[in-house]
Amino acid sequence: MTTETLNARSITTKANVYFDGKCVSHSFETAEGEKKSVGVVLASELTFGTAAPEIMECVGGACEYQLEEGGAWQTCTAGQSFKVAGNSKFNIRVAEAFHYICHYG
Amino acid sequence: MTTETLNARSITTKANVYFDGKCVSHSFETAEGEKKSVGVVLASELTFGTAAPEIMECVGGACEYQLEEGGAWQTCTAGQSFKVAGNSKFNIRVAEAFHYICHYG
Repeated sequence: MTTETLNARSITTKANVYFDGKCVSHSFETAEGEKKSVGVVLASELTFGTAAPEIMECVGGACEYQLEEGGAWQTCTAGQSFKVAGNSKFNIRVAEAFHYICHYG
Repeated sequence: MTTETLNARSITTKANVYFDGKCVSHSFETAEGEKKSVGVVLASELTFGTAAPEIMECVGGACEYQLEEGGAWQTCTAGQSFKVAGNSKFNIRVAEAFHYICHYG
């Protein structure tokens, strides 16, 4: 099931722009006080780094992701999620757009 | 004064992507039930159309805007706003990034 809306308490108005705009997200705080972000990765092949562990939940479009260099590429589509360890990197490739919620911790 | 955060009730998780990603926004509903969006326009020169009247409030970066074809170009920077009539068009040019809140009505 795709998460179309989330309860929020407050939203940070300024966007996070990464990779020349190939990834744009907005941070917000949930009603429960958790920090999350909603974002989109446009057509590109990118390497992301994490600080905290993350769960990337797809809410539209799709991506392929590779959690370890040389490892298998897997597909993530709307309603699916994947987990990324803290202090790590992962590769992502997107044909059109990958809309996501980033959950931390 | 720049609006850095806004109270919200819910956020739409899927981004609005316009002009091949030159403009990306996320829609949300305020604690008072008003629909707004937060977005960013990246380096570009674009023509936007409105349905409802809009107030564009700059929360980071800057843009130049032209409300009528052939009219004066004006600058909008963080903390400033400009109004756009409903069912109209306006031109916008951005050198780096223009982060905004779009208020409707």
